[in-house]
Parts: sequence; structure tokens; C-alpha cells
Amino acid sequence: MQASQIAEDYPSVRMDSDALAAAKLLAEHRLPGIVVTDGDQVPRAVLPASQVVRFLVPGYIQDDPSLAGVLSESVADRVADALRGKTVGQLLPDSAAKPVIPVVRADDTVIEVAALMARCRSPLVAVVEGKRMVGVITASRLLQVTLANT
Amino acid sequence: MQASQIAEDYPSVRMDSDALAAAKLLAEHRLPGIVVTDGDQVPRAVLPASQVVRFLVPGYIQDDPSLAGVLSESVADRVADALRGKTVGQLLPDSAAKPVIPVVRADDTVIEVAALMARCRSPLVAVVEGKRMVGVITASRLLQVTLANT
Repeated sequence: MQASQIAEDYPSVRMDSDALAAAKLLAEHRLPGIVVTDGDQVPRAVLPASQVVRFLVPGYIQDDPSLAGVLSESVADRVADALRGKTVGQLLPDSAAKPVIPVVRADDTVIEVAALMARCRSPLVAVVEGKRMVGVITASRLLQVTLANT
Repeated sequence: MQASQIAEDYPSVRMDSDALAAAKLLAEHRLPGIVVTDGDQVPRAVLPASQVVRFLVPGYIQDDPSLAGVLSESVADRVADALRGKTVGQLLPDSAAKPVIPVVRADDTVIEVAALMARCRSPLVAVVEGKRMVGVITASRLLQVTLANT
């Protein structure tokens, strides 16, 4: 069984996509993260929903969480304001902290996919043909496939 | 808006639950992880699906991933065998590497939940009343709630 046979479609955005639209995609599909590609459909990173949640929280509260309890401001207004006009690329953490997406080839075996996923402790890997992403395999998808006959 | 108002049910298992049953729950619900509680419903950890995927991969391949491509053994048999008779607690990594689940109180505000989630970079937090878990808030749920009116 090859990676391409178990890969699934998965919402992706581009580095230059609108940040608010990306947040709405995460919310609508209830995803833990979304794949970020460049203009050539090459997978570049994962944008975790928890990273977008950071933009709900004003900087002075990130510095001193005890202040969060006394804040009563409208959250929805703030998050929309914080995301409006930004790109997905601007939501991603800088370099070292950036969540990298592991990549497998379409003809890699299930064991190769599992080995990479386990080593990277990643909840998903991108499947590429050449350099372009053709789908995604999540850890739960891999379990679904391998446990199907047990 | 308080944590208890946006918390949702989320599958959980106990430390002494059957590992194979937990893997099937992850696969069936297509979850990136599952909450692990002790016998008193106190949240103790998250079992990521990627951690269960480790058990698909024989140790010698984890040590040398280049061997994965030449392996043609049945994966399904191996994973079922590897998980059978184990408990969830035995799947979790040891101490330091164990994924801790952040905990909020039922009356915490959305901003407090967001601040904790952002700080821990966690895709979900457990909501407790006293010490018992009453639900879970995922990062995407938090985005869904805060973006609902934008």
C-alpha cells in the first residue's frame, strides 16, 4: 500500500492567503491545523490552530496571564481586528519555532509514512508528487487504514 | 463567556484502558489525540495519534528509517499485535516527554483559555469542575466561538 492510495484532500492555504480567511477555515472544519503551501503548491509549513489563538490574546496578557481574568473586552472584535489585513505567513512563528510539515513521496510505503510520522511526532504528513502536494495523511488516517481489518 | 459554556464532549480513555481499543477510537473518530484520565476522571495526559503510530514501526526501523522501504510485512497484523494486551498508560512516553494536558476551570473566561492554549501551544485544554473533567475545548472550537459573529 502506497502513500498516494491513502492520502486525502485536506484544506490548505498559501503563505500570502488572508489570515482571517484561514482562521475561519480552521474554525469551520474544526481542524487542529492547516497546511501552508507556496504559490507552486509546495508544502512549506503547518499553521496550528493554537498559533492563531495567540492572536486572541493581547501581548500584555501573554506576558502576564494573571491579567486575563480581569479582562472583559469583546474577544471577537479583537481577533477579527488582529487578523484583518495580515497574511498567513505573518501568523507563522519565525524560523526555528515554525512547525515544519514532514513530506513523503506518493510511492512511499505505509511503513515509511509511519516511521517519518513517529520520528517527527507529527499529526500529519504531506504527500508530494515531484514537489507539489497531492494530499495529506493524518496519524488517525494511518491508524484507520492499518486497523481496518482487525 | 465561560469555559463551561463552550466546552464539548471529547472521547477520553483511562490510563488502564485497552491500548488497541484506544487506537480504534482515534481511528474511528479521526482524532489527532485523545484525553487520558485517571480512575477519578482527573485529566492526566493527551495520547497523540502520532504516538500510537510509533507502534506500527519496528524498533530497528525507528533506528534506521532507510530500512522502511524494503519492508513488506503486513502492517495491520503488527499493529494489532503490538497493541494487544497493553494499556494506554504503556503507550504514553515516559515522564518528561509525556504530553501534558493544560487544564482550565469551568468559570475561566475565553481569554484565560486562549492565553493558556497559546502559552502551551496545545491544540486542546481540559475543562474541570473541582478536579474532574467536564469537557474539552479545542483550539478550533475557540476560533469557531470567537469568529462566529465576524
